Amino acid sequence: MSSSPITLEELSKHATKESCWIVVHGKTYDVTDFLDEHPGGSKIILRYAGKDATEAYSEVHPPNIVTEHLTPAQQLGPITLPASTSSSSLAAAPAPPAELSPEQLDRLVLLSRRPPIDNILSLHDFEAVATEMLSRSAYAYYASAADDEITMRENHLAYARVFFRPRILIDVSTVDFSTTILGQPSSLPIYITATALGKLGHPDGELNLTRGAGKHGVIQMIPTLASCSFDEMIDAALEGQTQFLQLYVNKDREKTKSIVQHAEKRGIKGLFITVDAPQLGRREKDMRQKFDDTTDGSAVQTKGGDKVEKNQGAARAISSFIDPGLSWKDLDFFKSITNMPIVLKGVQCWEDAVLAAEAGVAGVVLSNHGGRQLDGSRSGLEVLVEVVRELKARKLFPNPKFEIYIDGGVRRATDVIKAVALGATAVGIGRPFIYAYSSYGQEGVEHACQILKDEFTMNMRLIGARTIKEIVPAMVDASALSHHSASVPSDRLFEANYASLEPTRLRAKL
Amino acid sequence: MSSSPITLEELSKHATKESCWIVVHGKTYDVTDFLDEHPGGSKIILRYAGKDATEAYSEVHPPNIVTEHLTPAQQLGPITLPASTSSSSLAAAPAPPAELSPEQLDRLVLLSRRPPIDNILSLHDFEAVATEMLSRSAYAYYASAADDEITMRENHLAYARVFFRPRILIDVSTVDFSTTILGQPSSLPIYITATALGKLGHPDGELNLTRGAGKHGVIQMIPTLASCSFDEMIDAALEGQTQFLQLYVNKDREKTKSIVQHAEKRGIKGLFITVDAPQLGRREKDMRQKFDDTTDGSAVQTKGGDKVEKNQGAARAISSFIDPGLSWKDLDFFKSITNMPIVLKGVQCWEDAVLAAEAGVAGVVLSNHGGRQLDGSRSGLEVLVEVVRELKARKLFPNPKFEIYIDGGVRRATDVIKAVALGATAVGIGRPFIYAYSSYGQEGVEHACQILKDEFTMNMRLIGARTIKEIVPAMVDASALSHHSASVPSDRLFEANYASLEPTRLRAKL
Amino acid sequence: MSSSPITLEELSKHATKESCWIVVHGKTYDVTDFLDEHPGGSKIILRYAGKDATEAYSEVHPPNIVTEHLTPAQQLGPITLPASTSSSSLAAAPAPPAELSPEQLDRLVLLSRRPPIDNILSLHDFEAVATEMLSRSAYAYYASAADDEITMRENHLAYARVFFRPRILIDVSTVDFSTTILGQPSSLPIYITATALGKLGHPDGELNLTRGAGKHGVIQMIPTLASCSFDEMIDAALEGQTQFLQLYVNKDREKTKSIVQHAEKRGIKGLFITVDAPQLGRREKDMRQKFDDTTDGSAVQTKGGDKVEKNQGAARAISSFIDPGLSWKDLDFFKSITNMPIVLKGVQCWEDAVLAAEAGVAGVVLSNHGGRQLDGSRSGLEVLVEVVRELKARKLFPNPKFEIYIDGGVRRATDVIKAVALGATAVGIGRPFIYAYSSYGQEGVEHACQILKDEFTMNMRLIGARTIKEIVPAMVDASALSHHSASVPSDRLFEANYASLEPTRLRAKL
Amino acid sequence: MSSSPITLEELSKHATKESCWIVVHGKTYDVTDFLDEHPGGSKIILRYAGKDATEAYSEVHPPNIVTEHLTPAQQLGPITLPASTSSSSLAAAPAPPAELSPEQLDRLVLLSRRPPIDNILSLHDFEAVATEMLSRSAYAYYASAADDEITMRENHLAYARVFFRPRILIDVSTVDFSTTILGQPSSLPIYITATALGKLGHPDGELNLTRGAGKHGVIQMIPTLASCSFDEMIDAALEGQTQFLQLYVNKDREKTKSIVQHAEKRGIKGLFITVDAPQLGRREKDMRQKFDDTTDGSAVQTKGGDKVEKNQGAARAISSFIDPGLSWKDLDFFKSITNMPIVLKGVQCWEDAVLAAEAGVAGVVLSNHGGRQLDGSRSGLEVLVEVVRELKARKLFPNPKFEIYIDGGVRRATDVIKAVALGATAVGIGRPFIYAYSSYGQEGVEHACQILKDEFTMNMRLIGARTIKEIVPAMVDASALSHHSASVPSDRLFEANYASLEPTRLRAKL
Repeated sequence: MSSSPITLEELSKHATKESCWIVVHGKTYDVTDFLDEHPGGSKIILRYAGKDATEAYSEVHPPNIVTEHLTPAQQLGPITLPASTSSSSLAAAPAPPAELSPEQLDRLVLLSRRPPIDNILSLHDFEAVATEMLSRSAYAYYASAADDEITMRENHLAYARVFFRPRILIDVSTVDFSTTILGQPSSLPIYITATALGKLGHPDGELNLTRGAGKHGVIQMIPTLASCSFDEMIDAALEGQTQFLQLYVNKDREKTKSIVQHAEKRGIKGLFITVDAPQLGRREKDMRQKFDDTTDGSAVQTKGGDKVEKNQGAARAISSFIDPGLSWKDLDFFKSITNMPIVLKGVQCWEDAVLAAEAGVAGVVLSNHGGRQLDGSRSGLEVLVEVVRELKARKLFPNPKFEIYIDGGVRRATDVIKAVALGATAVGIGRPFIYAYSSYGQEGVEHACQILKDEFTMNMRLIGARTIKEIVPAMVDASALSHHSASVPSDRLFEANYASLEPTRLRAKL
Repeated sequence: MSSSPITLEELSKHATKESCWIVVHGKTYDVTDFLDEHPGGSKIILRYAGKDATEAYSEVHPPNIVTEHLTPAQQLGPITLPASTSSSSLAAAPAPPAELSPEQLDRLVLLSRRPPIDNILSLHDFEAVATEMLSRSAYAYYASAADDEITMRENHLAYARVFFRPRILIDVSTVDFSTTILGQPSSLPIYITATALGKLGHPDGELNLTRGAGKHGVIQMIPTLASCSFDEMIDAALEGQTQFLQLYVNKDREKTKSIVQHAEKRGIKGLFITVDAPQLGRREKDMRQKFDDTTDGSAVQTKGGDKVEKNQGAARAISSFIDPGLSWKDLDFFKSITNMPIVLKGVQCWEDAVLAAEAGVAGVVLSNHGGRQLDGSRSGLEVLVEVVRELKARKLFPNPKFEIYIDGGVRRATDVIKAVALGATAVGIGRPFIYAYSSYGQEGVEHACQILKDEFTMNMRLIGARTIKEIVPAMVDASALSHHSASVPSDRLFEANYASLEPTRLRAKL
Repeated sequence: MSSSPITLEELSKHATKESCWIVVHGKTYDVTDFLDEHPGGSKIILRYAGKDATEAYSEVHPPNIVTEHLTPAQQLGPITLPASTSSSSLAAAPAPPAELSPEQLDRLVLLSRRPPIDNILSLHDFEAVATEMLSRSAYAYYASAADDEITMRENHLAYARVFFRPRILIDVSTVDFSTTILGQPSSLPIYITATALGKLGHPDGELNLTRGAGKHGVIQMIPTLASCSFDEMIDAALEGQTQFLQLYVNKDREKTKSIVQHAEKRGIKGLFITVDAPQLGRREKDMRQKFDDTTDGSAVQTKGGDKVEKNQGAARAISSFIDPGLSWKDLDFFKSITNMPIVLKGVQCWEDAVLAAEAGVAGVVLSNHGGRQLDGSRSGLEVLVEVVRELKARKLFPNPKFEIYIDGGVRRATDVIKAVALGATAVGIGRPFIYAYSSYGQEGVEHACQILKDEFTMNMRLIGARTIKEIVPAMVDASALSHHSASVPSDRLFEANYASLEPTRLRAKL
Repeated sequence: MSSSPITLEELSKHATKESCWIVVHGKTYDVTDFLDEHPGGSKIILRYAGKDATEAYSEVHPPNIVTEHLTPAQQLGPITLPASTSSSSLAAAPAPPAELSPEQLDRLVLLSRRPPIDNILSLHDFEAVATEMLSRSAYAYYASAADDEITMRENHLAYARVFFRPRILIDVSTVDFSTTILGQPSSLPIYITATALGKLGHPDGELNLTRGAGKHGVIQMIPTLASCSFDEMIDAALEGQTQFLQLYVNKDREKTKSIVQHAEKRGIKGLFITVDAPQLGRREKDMRQKFDDTTDGSAVQTKGGDKVEKNQGAARAISSFIDPGLSWKDLDFFKSITNMPIVLKGVQCWEDAVLAAEAGVAGVVLSNHGGRQLDGSRSGLEVLVEVVRELKARKLFPNPKFEIYIDGGVRRATDVIKAVALGATAVGIGRPFIYAYSSYGQEGVEHACQILKDEFTMNMRLIGARTIKEIVPAMVDASALSHHSASVPSDRLFEANYASLEPTRLRAKL
């Protein structure tokens, strides 16, 4: 590692694709060879070529990831600033209040306009507030889903096709909705599922989840692509607080092994291997937002040549992070490197659930990745019914050593209760918690947990179940769940393009 | 009971949570210890701390309830007014016309703008007028339902999935739609079901229902949470007019016993025990309205500490009024204290209907509480079909000693005819009657009854049924009733939050 | 009959309910006793009390009906006008162009704004033009249907649930869509069904239909409640042109007998007895329009007393025109008075179709009266499938002596072809022809027939049928026809009243 | 052929129906007798009577077609221009930039406003841009479909009723979506299907497709009604590029024979005979647009007499181009004149697919002509399921000598994958490619192919299929495909005409 100081003048000379240096947290890095490897594409880096990239970097990356991906030779020396520099972005200390940037001022105004948190009556409300609080690009990243976003909406709408059959005249003076997940106690049959790039929504990123979940006895699943570092999230946890790890498997199995074993050492209680993302999905709402960003006066205009490079770059970048070659035979490898229970996240049909149960893993998450991968996938809730039916037919369910989770589309305790009635041990909730902390930070996460608890108390009483075990299949009517004829979410792009027929009319007055 | 007079000055010193006095109907009460017991929460009381609360109190409470819930020691003396007081709210006599409050003036203007009552063609029209007549908070209270209000809308939409199979060439010169309910004559197979807080809509509250129902030979079900007193509603009835009683069961069974036995003594002909409300539902339209009220310049701003207290308070308050421990074994108790026929109100699946029939009660109301309790419940109409099928399979139906009622979502005589065809003895109608008297007082209730009678005459002729008994199952096609794939009401909060995909467009002109 | 002339002064003295005279076509009538018998209610007559009612009368009545319903004593003498009268409404000759009324001027302007008739591409287009051409009250009368108008819309939407299974590689150089209806030749498998009050749409009223149908070899069904007289419509027919008669059966069977026998004598080829209207339906769009008319400055304001009278009056009036006691045993009477084939119009379930076939009538019209009677009735198309299935099971179909027709909701030749494929001999079309002549007079009726013929040529070729007989059941997929879960038309009044849930939002800027 | 030059003065004298001359590409033609033969009707020609029609002609016709349809005597001499002519439309050379027509300027402005092509994220985006780029008449021609356009929309919406059942943990490092169609290699299981009048969208017309398809290894089906000539499209192809031919069969089989044999000689690899268009469909969006054109100040106003002539003319014109007498027995003729594999395009039920397989043709296209022929037809995707089921039951599928294609409504690779899973060899895509080149010329076609390839790579990985053969029926849930109850596209004309019921309201303030 070359550690001789770099001057601003020197830095500014390396501002092209051919030689691209950037500054992060006061140190200079030569990222020329990394440009095509970057999962987010080279364009976003090139915008900071020859400049300080700390702010943009921090929004989406843990502090140490830059050094993990660069060789010592690519890690240049610290940047030296002239005494009289006026570049606020290079200054270590935050700018004084009098010099708040327009973005910071906007944020302060938005914060002041938030409704008091007890006006937030449901998880829907967090989303409504977050929609206005988030930057356009953050909103586009979080809210987007694959292709026509039909599966994302179907995830939610599927719940509305399941109706309750509540029981009466049961003494529900006390109800208890605590349970266990992979043997770990949980105050609710839910967990906070893994989602990426948490700092886009709030400067503390995923730490909001760690802290809020800890206070409420809820389990957090730590994501591979978090913008806080893994250890930060472990360190922020309370004594005895349960955390799981979501894993994207790297082509380089040694890297994966080191991540997994480090996690086990730090006390992670379950390993959720993502199996529905051999390639990261096309999310057009997000992509369109990025085009809008770059075409607004950006100098790094895409040309014919760039297009090819970009495609190659994306493919190459993905191949170096997520292994599309992951297959059933890899399970032995994972069993050999860890004693954590292993769960497959992203199962979408009963055949694979049966394979998983037979392979001896501890569970499956019936998930379509929040609708962000394969548009046209069925909701986890619908898959749950077929998986339970087929596992039962093979005497593989119920089975204390094999749990079923689902995620996607949950907004109400009643949604969770429906899933539990149909056989799920717990339900993962993702976006609603992001929207909660994007709006109100850690307090938002806590309030979200409290809303769910209040709804649980109420609705377990109303269906006549005193414990999670008393939530049984006969309490729901799921007969319409797999009827796709009507519930198909509308195709918004198709509709926007359709020029409706109009009848002829009288002519305008002469 | 301390009866020494209280001065305005003294009163105004007790205006905090720590010491809270209010005036109702000229008497002073110390409600400090009652704050957390109040079913409506402490905040609404605190708004009147140290002041006269008579007007707000009267809108939602019977006159005597304040003394029932307070110990003698908490009932302080009469308020004494200085001779020159100008506080109109404390004056016993109504203000002279020249000093009408803005609210009263607004009401007078609205009254003058109502369409003539014979422009009201259907129950829908009453609702449209009431929407404009009611105060925002009254509307929010009446119109709201649980969570996403899916069940409330499904209640109505379910009727549209049942189609008629009318018969022709039957001499329908005269049609007769009178029937009996629990052995009591009724001019129509409907009854006015119990709804709370009637004075929010009209100063005479539920008395409008008593009087209008009496004129038309329709049975009124008196609610536990009426804002008129039970005896007022009995006294307002005509000689021989049938009334039922809806009952929330108190943890203190002695209080319940005294209510039931008093009711029987006063001539009540049926006891409808609510079994779908171990806890009162979350109705967000109503809750949001309350936040709007309190956050508009209210000094009693919610703080972190308040939040917990509020939750505890609500729970405690409910536990002192409605017993979540009510269970099947309590039925013996009710049989032991009254000879009135007992009906369970709020049954939602055939299993409980069978239990009820076997337990020897006189009937069940298949009801989801107007969609105000468990969102995701099925409509009464849909449950009716399964209940009749399973009772028949067990030789429990038809049975002159066990009647089935449904309520929720009715707007037309054709709705009632559908329910009767499918096996219901009668149908409860709630909100439409509230909207009728909120718009036109007692005359509205009468006109609503007349509309139903006109529609009944017409539609019984058109289906070819001369009597209620001739309305048979073959006259309807209910095959689509339990198909939830399409009929699912839309999720409005979800939709409001969804940012629709938009295709790319040409750029604006340069 | 008193025939002494009546002066304007005398006339004007009889302008109350107690003594009500009107002038029609220059003659004076005392209609005091008739007020309560009038099917349209007394109010509309009272508006012309003591005045000339000719214009309003002519819009909805045949010329001679006034004398049929009044005793000779009620028929007073001719009106005498003062030489200098300026009352244009009493003048026999039309006003000179310079004195066109505002209504006439409006009509002329509208006529000039119509699109050229060859811009009318489908029956939908006539409706769009007619909507703008018709007076508000005429539109309300024609377009309205019962209650929530669900059946009216379902009539049309049902067609969209039937899909085609066309055949290919059939020589369709020539296609022939002529057929016979009750043994009478028809150029198309359609007929113009009976609709009332034709002059509301055009001064020539139903004569437009007679003339246009004659030119195109289409059969017209003459309505009982036409605004042209029966004989006018017979006289306007071409040599050999087929006409049917729709019959409302009068309580006074002698009156009915005389109508039927007169019709047979004048060459009517089929008698369609309406069996779905023991009482005329409530059509709120029409009723609301009438309230708008009367409450805009009308002096005949409804009072409490009036309301009762109106209800009684309507009941009495109907009982004197249409017999709600009509029943199966009356069929012998009809067979005894005529040799015309008898068809029952308004059958709505297979049970009645079987009864009809067994009773030996010549056919049935599966109809719900264009949705104007019992809202919640199924479409004729849906009923057709069940009727054909059950008749076949009883060897009653196919049967050359028993034909099945349907009506309601047709807008396209493809709709007709679907009905024919499912077993209908012909399809009645009503409103589209009204809209056609309301927009373009007789030319509109002809153009409507031509559009249907063009569509028939095209679509028979496209499904691979060269003759009506080649349109077979296998050419359609009607499996979704009876699925009401999704196709339920929305309830517009319910929707208009529903206050949609809204999520909380950021507060407005300070 | 008379080749003596014609003066402008002489030309202008032949500007009526009785004598109609036009100029195309500098030569004069007497088209008087051709007026009624013209498939597009006589009106459009009459607009150019006595004038130069080159520009309008070129948009929709290949260069040589004018001479093919006219006798030598009708082909007059070249037009001679006066030296000082300022008529730019008659000038051979393009007008200098300074004299751009308003239309040309508009087009230049639109071109400059297009988003950069890499902003086009999906085929939907091309359509959105094309909607704004195309002239109104070109858009109306391309976008229109038959009658109420229900089938056109159903074609697309049917895909949304099929859901995926993806498999996990399969090594998808490399995926290969190449296949063969009629034995010819194709880089994707799609082909560009035949569509008419390509120059309406872009001056190079169908050549954009030839060139773009060639670059991407995609097969183009050349249409009979192209606006480029057949040989131009052959000549524009790359060495070894596969092209198919779509054929409308002429009544004059010799003409058809010469077209087919010329095609085979030029290397066409498959003959797709259109069997769903014995008559070209009524497309009202297109027709309405034409009326708008002609009624805007056109002198050739339609009169009563014209109407009949127009109908006759259309019928005659069609009979001279497309033979409605084409039938199964003609297949022997086609087999006798060519060795190209023969495919029937437009099969819509299993019965005809079985007949086709038994007749020994090489395949069928399950197609409804993009919804442009028989409205109410089912989608190709839905027909596919029934065809595969019935062919299998008869041991006719799978069969290497009989392939099944479908077309209509495709917008995504996932759509294609669904069709392939259900048994299709390939899917034809039409309008999206038109919209692609109308927006961006050949580059648009290439980008459309690239989008499909990117989507294919992604989505095959996500369902777990490495090759086309691995896309199996178990990977989709098509159980809702034939449920028409909910998916019925709305009837826009019906809706536009429906006057929604409105409840009564308070009257306006006084």
